Amino acid sequence: MTGTMAGTMKGKFITVEGTEGVGKTTNIQRIAGWLDERGITYISTREPGGTALGEKIRDLLLDKGNISMVASAELLLMFAARAQHLEEKIIPALAAGTWVLCDRFTDATYAYQGFGRGLNLEHIKGLEALVQGDLHPDFTLILDIDPALGMSRVRARGELDRFESEELAFFDRVRAGYRERVNGNPSRYCLVDASAPLAIVQAHIVGALNTFVGEG
Amino acid sequence: MTGTMAGTMKGKFITVEGTEGVGKTTNIQRIAGWLDERGITYISTREPGGTALGEKIRDLLLDKGNISMVASAELLLMFAARAQHLEEKIIPALAAGTWVLCDRFTDATYAYQGFGRGLNLEHIKGLEALVQGDLHPDFTLILDIDPALGMSRVRARGELDRFESEELAFFDRVRAGYRERVNGNPSRYCLVDASAPLAIVQAHIVGALNTFVGEG
Repeated sequence: MTGTMAGTMKGKFITVEGTEGVGKTTNIQRIAGWLDERGITYISTREPGGTALGEKIRDLLLDKGNISMVASAELLLMFAARAQHLEEKIIPALAAGTWVLCDRFTDATYAYQGFGRGLNLEHIKGLEALVQGDLHPDFTLILDIDPALGMSRVRARGELDRFESEELAFFDRVRAGYRERVNGNPSRYCLVDASAPLAIVQAHIVGALNTFVGEG
Repeated sequence: MTGTMAGTMKGKFITVEGTEGVGKTTNIQRIAGWLDERGITYISTREPGGTALGEKIRDLLLDKGNISMVASAELLLMFAARAQHLEEKIIPALAAGTWVLCDRFTDATYAYQGFGRGLNLEHIKGLEALVQGDLHPDFTLILDIDPALGMSRVRARGELDRFESEELAFFDRVRAGYRERVNGNPSRYCLVDASAPLAIVQAHIVGALNTFVGEG
C-alpha cells in the first residue's frame, strides 16, 4: 500500500523481538548506545504504537477489558497501527538516512497472531505484502528465553496486560514461532539466549551488530 | 478468516448504504417496520461498530482529532471492526436464522476508501476475501443523492465528524463508487433516488424488499 521500494531507503531498520520478560528494554538501550558510539542518527520507536493513532490502537490491543477481541480483529489492528507507523514515521526516517530502532515489528505478528493464536500464516503474509510492500527490517534481534522464566520476571513488574495474561502454552508457541522465523531467513536474524548473564547477552548483540555493519 | 460458508446461513443479510445526509436512519426504520410486519426476527446494527470493540474503533475513525490517519490505516481499522462484528454478532445471528439489518458494510469500504480515498480496489477485495470468506449481503439498499444536498442536511444536524468534514469532491467520488458497485452486480442492489419525496422513496424500498422475498 505504501508503494515504497526498500532499495531506496538510506537508513537501516533494526527490530528487537522476543516473548514477555525477555529483556527487550535493557537490550534496546544497549543497541541505542552502540548507535550513539558510532554517531549514527536514529529514532527509537515501538509496535504496536509509535504514532499518536498507533498508541491508541495499542491501548485497544493491550486493554484486558477487550476480552472478546477475536484473533482476526487483533491481526488487523496490528497492521492498521503498522500502516500508520510506516507512512508517518518509519519510511520518512529511513528515506532521510535515519536509522530506525523498533521494539517489535512484523516478526511479532507471525509469532503471536500466527503461531500463538493459530491464524493462517499465508493471511499474515498477504497483509505484510499489502502494508509493507518489500520493506523489511535489515537486522532483527530475537531474544530467546524459556517463557516460564520470562513470565516470572513480568509478574514481578506488576499488573499484566491482555497479552501477558495468556497461558504459558501460548508463549511456548510464540517462542517456537520466532525460532521458525530465524530458520526461514537466518541471515537477517540474530538469535540470542537471553537467559545468559547480561554481559554475555550484550557482547553477543554488539558482535552481531558489528558484523552487520561489516566491522565484525 | 472466518471460514464461514455463506450457504449455511439461515437468516438474510440486509445492508443500507449511501453518502452523508442521504436519510439512512429514516429508511432503516422503514425496513425494520417491514421486517416487523412480516414477523421476521432480526437485529439492527451498524458499521463501523456494532460490537463493544467495534464501537471503540469507530470512535478512532470518526474522531477529527485523528487528522493524521493515513488511508491504509483507515482501511485496516474498518476491516478490524468488521472482523469482530462478523465473528461476534453477524455470523452467529445469520446462522441462527436471525436476519441482520446493517447500517453500512463493505460496499462503503469500496466507496469511501476505494473511490473516495483512491486506495487500490484489488487490495480491498483481498481484505474482503480474508475477512468475509464468501459471506456477502443478500440485499443492499443504496440511497443516492447529490452530495451537495446531503451535506446541507448533515450540517444542519450539528458538528461534523472526520468523514463528514471531507470536501464535496470526496463525496462525489464516493457516490460514483456506489454506482459502480451497482453496475457490477445489479441483482443484489436496490438503488433509490433519495432526493424524491419520502413516501416515494419508501414505496420503492418496500417494493424492492417484496421482490427480494418473492412477493413482488
